[in-house]
Amino acid sequence: MKLATLKNGRPDGQLVVVSAGMTQCVSAGRIAPTLQAALDDWAVHGPALAALAAQLDAGAIAGQPFDTAHALAPLPRAYQWIDGAGYLSHLERVRSLKGSKDAELQSARPLLYQGGSDSLSAATAPILVTDPDLAIDFEAEVAVIIGAVPMRATRDQAASAIRLVTICNDVSLRRLVVDDLQNGFGFFHAKPSTAFAPVVMTPESLGNNWRDSRLHLPVRVEVNGGLFGQPNAGTDMHFDFADLIVEAARTRNLAAGTIIGGGTVSNRHDEGLPTKPGGIGFACIAEARTVEKIKYGRARTPFLKPGDTVRIAAIAADGKSAFGDINQVVALA
Amino acid sequence: MKLATLKNGRPDGQLVVVSAGMTQCVSAGRIAPTLQAALDDWAVHGPALAALAAQLDAGAIAGQPFDTAHALAPLPRAYQWIDGAGYLSHLERVRSLKGSKDAELQSARPLLYQGGSDSLSAATAPILVTDPDLAIDFEAEVAVIIGAVPMRATRDQAASAIRLVTICNDVSLRRLVVDDLQNGFGFFHAKPSTAFAPVVMTPESLGNNWRDSRLHLPVRVEVNGGLFGQPNAGTDMHFDFADLIVEAARTRNLAAGTIIGGGTVSNRHDEGLPTKPGGIGFACIAEARTVEKIKYGRARTPFLKPGDTVRIAAIAADGKSAFGDINQVVALA
Repeated sequence: MKLATLKNGRPDGQLVVVSAGMTQCVSAGRIAPTLQAALDDWAVHGPALAALAAQLDAGAIAGQPFDTAHALAPLPRAYQWIDGAGYLSHLERVRSLKGSKDAELQSARPLLYQGGSDSLSAATAPILVTDPDLAIDFEAEVAVIIGAVPMRATRDQAASAIRLVTICNDVSLRRLVVDDLQNGFGFFHAKPSTAFAPVVMTPESLGNNWRDSRLHLPVRVEVNGGLFGQPNAGTDMHFDFADLIVEAARTRNLAAGTIIGGGTVSNRHDEGLPTKPGGIGFACIAEARTVEKIKYGRARTPFLKPGDTVRIAAIAADGKSAFGDINQVVALA
Repeated sequence: MKLATLKNGRPDGQLVVVSAGMTQCVSAGRIAPTLQAALDDWAVHGPALAALAAQLDAGAIAGQPFDTAHALAPLPRAYQWIDGAGYLSHLERVRSLKGSKDAELQSARPLLYQGGSDSLSAATAPILVTDPDLAIDFEAEVAVIIGAVPMRATRDQAASAIRLVTICNDVSLRRLVVDDLQNGFGFFHAKPSTAFAPVVMTPESLGNNWRDSRLHLPVRVEVNGGLFGQPNAGTDMHFDFADLIVEAARTRNLAAGTIIGGGTVSNRHDEGLPTKPGGIGFACIAEARTVEKIKYGRARTPFLKPGDTVRIAAIAADGKSAFGDINQVVALA
């Protein structure tokens, strides 16, 4: 089952069921007006939405054309956005940057940060920045939306609470990361609004592409139309989503509708840029710059500037964009 | 105007208008079913709620008894909870503790952290902890709930976006603060669910007690029935709420319903514990312990343990609890 949220002038938008081919959609309003409302009573609404999706796919009901340009983030505002660090090679690479902690990397328990969830961006929303010189970066990630999880949940409880899967762009202002880390209170100014793909899918509907609490698809990133990276999200994910949820629930309950990010997708390799057609590359600029510093003595890939575009898509076996594209342009606020 | 949210079996509860004397309340359902719904369209709903409050106070409509035991947090789940550090003496005291950063204190710009907002606790909810040995502490704070604030807001925009005022208990697990700070990703496990007083008030209804974007009332804290502190929230607040909102909006928009905390209320003095009847004392245990270390060579005041109680109230000139009491007991989850 695929779901999306369309603009309707209200902060939470309108929940729609999207056809498997992502060409048609139908309002889910008679089941639940918003995705959060569906998640609040998923045991009832989840099956009803799945039945509606089956009818749409069978042609038993008429849909309307699905236009991703009218989509908001699946949860345009959420009660919680927690970003984890599932891929250790991402951490290893960015931690060698100036201003980062030089403490030992933790491989026993994943790092998490509490992100802002009040204003999540649509897939085609511009990346609005107040200053072109903030070392603007993207981070292509897999994210899951969960049902309620109790404090001290087990791995089984965590894995079975995963309701929906998608991808996101955790926009990062690297110059402010340094300040935020030095302040010691965690990321704040360095993490403006995160953008989400237009479509979310249930784990079941991903078939073999969702297993071991990981998404096994390449996440393709293009900058200004050129390939930047296509690491596989199922490869080198040291902490899977069950691990991340268990860690997030160590001292607190997690409410239904909590979004958990898996961290910047990152595969182990030492290829430099530009990424060749069959190469792996990177899902953020900071990692590329670190590898360049090691290989060439200096970082060569610039951060984003106003006017630059970034496109992020999880590519299915048929070559199609599984959740629809994130396609953003950097703009001055 | 005073508002509260009563239990009704739904995650967001039922918005009620509370009488000035906090003895009566009336459903606000015909105006807005929930506090978030009211905040989403405050220009319309704010005046309608104020008119309903005036009718209730005039005896023109019948209310029902207002029982704070049936109240949830005013926003039982919010889209954002940002805690600032308005009182520098709090920072100075806790930063001398083990594991904290020894960097220079910043007095030019306030520190902020992104808190979890998916599960905010009622005033009488227990403080649930997984382990009695986590150095369990309270932090008595003033908090405001705001309307939408644009990125790069001015101080005037920030001050005029303050819709409601209350107090909260930012529960802190000091042993995990050390871990969280060392990880460098900010507070996460150390900050379980924050609890809120049952009642929120508009700044206007606070009269002279709200001025200069500060609450000018003592915040009284009792531990196990004994006075712990009663610092005045309007004294030594270096960064006022307009400063905190401006800082929070430096790189992003803030959605309606965002909650901003002022940080642990803290007045400059060097009195030790126990706090005398007319003394100032402290609004968290960590500060008391720091002062004890300096005065006596060692910390004498223990952190909370299961069974301990903490009561927090902002005391108005008539001796009454302005927002109703926060009254929590520590319990093992």
